[in-house]
Amino acid sequence: MRIEAYMAARVLAVDRALPRFIGGLRARPRLARAMNYSLCAGGKRLRPALMCAAYETFGGDSGEILPAACAIEMVHTYSLIHDDLPAMDDAALRRGRPANHKVYGEAAALLAGDALLTDAFTVMLSAKYPPRVKAPRLLRAAAILAGRAGAAGMVSGQAADLEAEGFLDRAPAARRGRALRLLSYIHRRKTACLITAAVEMGAALAGAPEKDFRALSAFGRDLGLCFQAADDILDVSGDRKKLGKNASDARNRKLTYAALLGMEEARRRAGALLRSALRSLARVKGRDKPRALLADLAGLVLRREN
Amino acid sequence: MRIEAYMAARVLAVDRALPRFIGGLRARPRLARAMNYSLCAGGKRLRPALMCAAYETFGGDSGEILPAACAIEMVHTYSLIHDDLPAMDDAALRRGRPANHKVYGEAAALLAGDALLTDAFTVMLSAKYPPRVKAPRLLRAAAILAGRAGAAGMVSGQAADLEAEGFLDRAPAARRGRALRLLSYIHRRKTACLITAAVEMGAALAGAPEKDFRALSAFGRDLGLCFQAADDILDVSGDRKKLGKNASDARNRKLTYAALLGMEEARRRAGALLRSALRSLARVKGRDKPRALLADLAGLVLRREN
Repeated sequence: MRIEAYMAARVLAVDRALPRFIGGLRARPRLARAMNYSLCAGGKRLRPALMCAAYETFGGDSGEILPAACAIEMVHTYSLIHDDLPAMDDAALRRGRPANHKVYGEAAALLAGDALLTDAFTVMLSAKYPPRVKAPRLLRAAAILAGRAGAAGMVSGQAADLEAEGFLDRAPAARRGRALRLLSYIHRRKTACLITAAVEMGAALAGAPEKDFRALSAFGRDLGLCFQAADDILDVSGDRKKLGKNASDARNRKLTYAALLGMEEARRRAGALLRSALRSLARVKGRDKPRALLADLAGLVLRREN
Repeated sequence: MRIEAYMAARVLAVDRALPRFIGGLRARPRLARAMNYSLCAGGKRLRPALMCAAYETFGGDSGEILPAACAIEMVHTYSLIHDDLPAMDDAALRRGRPANHKVYGEAAALLAGDALLTDAFTVMLSAKYPPRVKAPRLLRAAAILAGRAGAAGMVSGQAADLEAEGFLDRAPAARRGRALRLLSYIHRRKTACLITAAVEMGAALAGAPEKDFRALSAFGRDLGLCFQAADDILDVSGDRKKLGKNASDARNRKLTYAALLGMEEARRRAGALLRSALRSLARVKGRDKPRALLADLAGLVLRREN
């Protein structure tokens, strides 16, 4: 199966399931609308697709873990809503549409994010699964999601990102080394953690052997870092319309590879990270077809335009 | 054991365990400080104590479920931090100290809340439990926490509370019936859901029979409603110093029983709710001592001063 067809099928399944899960919560109507607004805003569904392919690598049918795939997309979406809030990055646009708080107001956007985060666990933990997804596997997958998204991971990445704003203005040349270490800290947690969680959760749900779990985890980490490096490059060279944002990171005085190292070195890093990811993937013993899909997904990440 | 001694022992255990769990996450230092600031601000630990007593009612030793007891306190604390934010209730004081965002800034307070919510699940799902806390029981308890705290519960309560601000100013007399229904919706979700979750989680972790689970759940709901009714009364008649807040709900034009029905009727309702809670509790078949503790805890809720 070609990767585009694979992605399209997974995107469709997730796109259909998400509003169904939200509807099942019987939330306050306006809250449910705010949740759905950002959930159904044309996300790439990269994390669910990675989870599905990882699960299939160890022999499952990815339809079986749809609630978990939707859960990680809900966590990803909450993080975008909160990141865009005035107190954070104060972004007016997201994926080419007004940010959640521009449509529903700050309070409702904050609550929509809170609900998406909380109900990622409701959706994942309350669903019925086939017997192969045993309770301890589900527990482990949910613990991975929480651990990678929480203070040990994504939230600390966002906290460091905010602390780092204007870092280079304050003392450019002498602090380049520290800036690179800080940037690596941010990328690892803010972006790579949740992408790593996606493949780890797929492996955990399928009951992958520990050695393969670890190799897949390394694949996820490098793929996540590659994703963020590609993001930095796109932010400078990309088409703002396709990106769907209006203010660039440079304008926000964000720390980026492009700003620190120049575009050429940033591109070289992204390529090296992809190769490193693929080396880890090659160590994973699983079914060939879904493993090849993971490699193709990784290629998409580097070539993406938004 | 007298209820005060029981509470003191549970408060001590939770107070000691919480910073240890936060430390274990290896968060960004400032983020960890912001999380600990609100976690260790002298909370009453009512929800953990209720969970412990519910668990003991069905034969467990409450030390076994300390991670779950801490998890519900983390969820409660996140909700207070987010509720106090400028976009929400814009509160300057909480428990007699400056609100989280007054100390750490809005962005950090938002992230501290996000992390506390997420890592409630990390703490609860990653911990080791004795064999009697089987994986399906733990899954069910975590699903209860997420379901009661999410869009089906607490978050919709907060959303409705914000929508209801100034409701009575807009058309007082004719809308009294609607206002009462709205107020009941808010109390049920904003406050009663998490208190219900506390006893339900204790029962689920201990593997209580379904009939007892349901009776305990009804106890939790009425106790939660009684808690909120008592809160409304305290807000009017209480000592502002002991409450540790500076603006009353009346000043915020919040819908309250006291405003809608007057103090006497509000007091009558709180008493009736407590009696209803105790009737449900009487139907629970479990160990007598911890069940008596639950009744005593309920009494404390009605008599509380902060």
